[in-house]
Amino acid sequence: MEKREDGIMGMNILVAHGGGPTAVINTSLQGVVEAARASGRVDKIYAARFGAEGILKGDLMDLTEVPAEVIARLRHTPASAIGSCRRKLTQDDYPTVLETIKKFKIDAFFYNGGNDSMDTCNKVNELAVKEGLNLSVIGIPKTMDNDLEVTDHCPGFGSAARYAAISASELALDASGLPIHVVVLELMGRNAGWVTAAGAMARRLTRCGQLTYLPEVPVDMDRMLADIEAVYAKGNGLLVTVSEGVCGPDGKPLADTGIVDGFGHVVPGGTAQYISGQIMQKLGIKSRAEKPGLLGRCSIPYVSPVDSGEAYEVGRYALESALRGESGQMVAIEAVRRPQYRSRLFLTPLSGVANAEKRFPLEWIVDGNQIDDAFFDYAKPLMGEDFPQYAFLR
Amino acid sequence: MEKREDGIMGMNILVAHGGGPTAVINTSLQGVVEAARASGRVDKIYAARFGAEGILKGDLMDLTEVPAEVIARLRHTPASAIGSCRRKLTQDDYPTVLETIKKFKIDAFFYNGGNDSMDTCNKVNELAVKEGLNLSVIGIPKTMDNDLEVTDHCPGFGSAARYAAISASELALDASGLPIHVVVLELMGRNAGWVTAAGAMARRLTRCGQLTYLPEVPVDMDRMLADIEAVYAKGNGLLVTVSEGVCGPDGKPLADTGIVDGFGHVVPGGTAQYISGQIMQKLGIKSRAEKPGLLGRCSIPYVSPVDSGEAYEVGRYALESALRGESGQMVAIEAVRRPQYRSRLFLTPLSGVANAEKRFPLEWIVDGNQIDDAFFDYAKPLMGEDFPQYAFLR
Repeated sequence: MEKREDGIMGMNILVAHGGGPTAVINTSLQGVVEAARASGRVDKIYAARFGAEGILKGDLMDLTEVPAEVIARLRHTPASAIGSCRRKLTQDDYPTVLETIKKFKIDAFFYNGGNDSMDTCNKVNELAVKEGLNLSVIGIPKTMDNDLEVTDHCPGFGSAARYAAISASELALDASGLPIHVVVLELMGRNAGWVTAAGAMARRLTRCGQLTYLPEVPVDMDRMLADIEAVYAKGNGLLVTVSEGVCGPDGKPLADTGIVDGFGHVVPGGTAQYISGQIMQKLGIKSRAEKPGLLGRCSIPYVSPVDSGEAYEVGRYALESALRGESGQMVAIEAVRRPQYRSRLFLTPLSGVANAEKRFPLEWIVDGNQIDDAFFDYAKPLMGEDFPQYAFLR
Repeated sequence: MEKREDGIMGMNILVAHGGGPTAVINTSLQGVVEAARASGRVDKIYAARFGAEGILKGDLMDLTEVPAEVIARLRHTPASAIGSCRRKLTQDDYPTVLETIKKFKIDAFFYNGGNDSMDTCNKVNELAVKEGLNLSVIGIPKTMDNDLEVTDHCPGFGSAARYAAISASELALDASGLPIHVVVLELMGRNAGWVTAAGAMARRLTRCGQLTYLPEVPVDMDRMLADIEAVYAKGNGLLVTVSEGVCGPDGKPLADTGIVDGFGHVVPGGTAQYISGQIMQKLGIKSRAEKPGLLGRCSIPYVSPVDSGEAYEVGRYALESALRGESGQMVAIEAVRRPQYRSRLFLTPLSGVANAEKRFPLEWIVDGNQIDDAFFDYAKPLMGEDFPQYAFLR
């Protein structure tokens, strides 16, 4: 940020979203915009329309004059209000990215995303340094998958986990109150079980039987069916909670949709439907499969207040870090859970998170179908703690 | 209610649930129990464990001493807290029903359910009259399907509609913020489009393209695909909202799961997945299908406050009607919508609702894929009106 030709001392900033949205990604955007306005040191607030695609096309939206009440609505608006994309930038794209940054005289660039986006951030920063640009590049973490390294957890995960935990509990109550079928619930997370594990909360909030399967542990179908039969026989109902990415012993997904897309590729998915079919065919027990899918990342009523608060703060902290002249960093969260949950933010080099993936700890998976309390010690504060207390009369 | 041998002046009451639950069926139970306690005229409060099955087995729970704070939690407990079943009573069962009623000295019987339950109610009442039993039989309406006659609407529908409307809007924001695929959302209602129609709210709350298909209008797949291609091409994203029971021109469901159950029957379902597959195969456009299924009837955060309030009142009104000596009636709702929504309760003979079905008006379906404003004039007040206002920045 220097005195520019036009005599204005303020900074121009650019925010972009990358990859799949979360229920609170817009809240981080709100944090950036409101902190920028409060600082009195930001001139123009730009946002890339549809993420990397907007940057490459030079298609930026000017949010500088958007009314405060519209910005405030971002907290209750799911998905990406500025648009996102799945395009992964290649080496050939980076010069075009810098062109846009120069054209709009951007002083600070904020990229809100997961692993891939942090990699992009890192490369933009390296190129800016190489070209002697005075650009601050800050990554804002976001992923419901919770797989970013260094940070205790990712904004977006707490809300997706809360959705999984409470939705599973509600389904479990349905399954046990009218126990005519085994209900199978499919949750998001193709490679990592973080969100599906949160669904195991149903066994803690209800009296319904529950079995939970994550992609980290290969599933033996015969054993799964035997376990389902045994738990269902107890008569308290049964909810089977599965990650969409659950695999068999051969490492291949249990199911595909049976659909070949327009490009000739078999479309993966339908794990819950497949298991449900096996329950009916092999056990002769009625079953139905539910798959809320993307609703697990865009449902505002299930947003965790803790997650929402932190999502806002990482946005604000990113802006303030840029004002201090920081660059090449991602905002990360440090948390303590005893005697009560507290978190604080810090910066960590983009290079350390760009190509790393935090795995779900295998020791938190018990007998292949239960989740250890240690996971809930970790995750409950992120989900917001104020879980429903149900009436049990039977 | 007479002075019995034991010298107690109070009534003994029995509540039972029939069929699929809703998000507010327990709220009606709360209404009955709290009104019974407030009246000072009820001795024993019984509930049938798992509905008709509990009645036939004489398996009643005594709720008389359940703490008030547990009863209050019913308002936030989805599904049936006393248990329900799908068993339809036959002529042979009714004598056994009366045995239980005599054994527990029941003075008033409340059956909370849909068409089938009102039929049961009616038959129990006729038999009681025939046998000279001093029994008050009152039906409490409940169905997310909204297909009961006489009553303006059914408790349970408003919340299922609110779930459909807001979930669809949230998915539409996701589909338009990251427009890499057509999202197909399957909603409940095998024979009637009431709930799926509410999902058409997304076109009103967001800027995403939307097409909506109800079971009332047979679908021509070629035309559907042409419409999908045309709306998707506009570039604002596309949400296709379908009822699970959508049929082709031959009157057969568009899809089945491809699963044969343990009894050799093909399991219906997978409508959204089928349409999604057609979009990929025939149009070469990426697509994904979501099916929240039972979540649409058991999600507490999406409960309509209007629906919740009315569900409570129908329970209370049922109890008070029995105290007045009414029998053979169902509680029904009369509503006015101008200048603002108001409703009041009244009694209607069970015989008039027992075997009738309220159909979705065909004139509310426009071009086979849009829902007329007249439906929303009818349904919006029931959903609670306070719809989210989203931030639109693009």
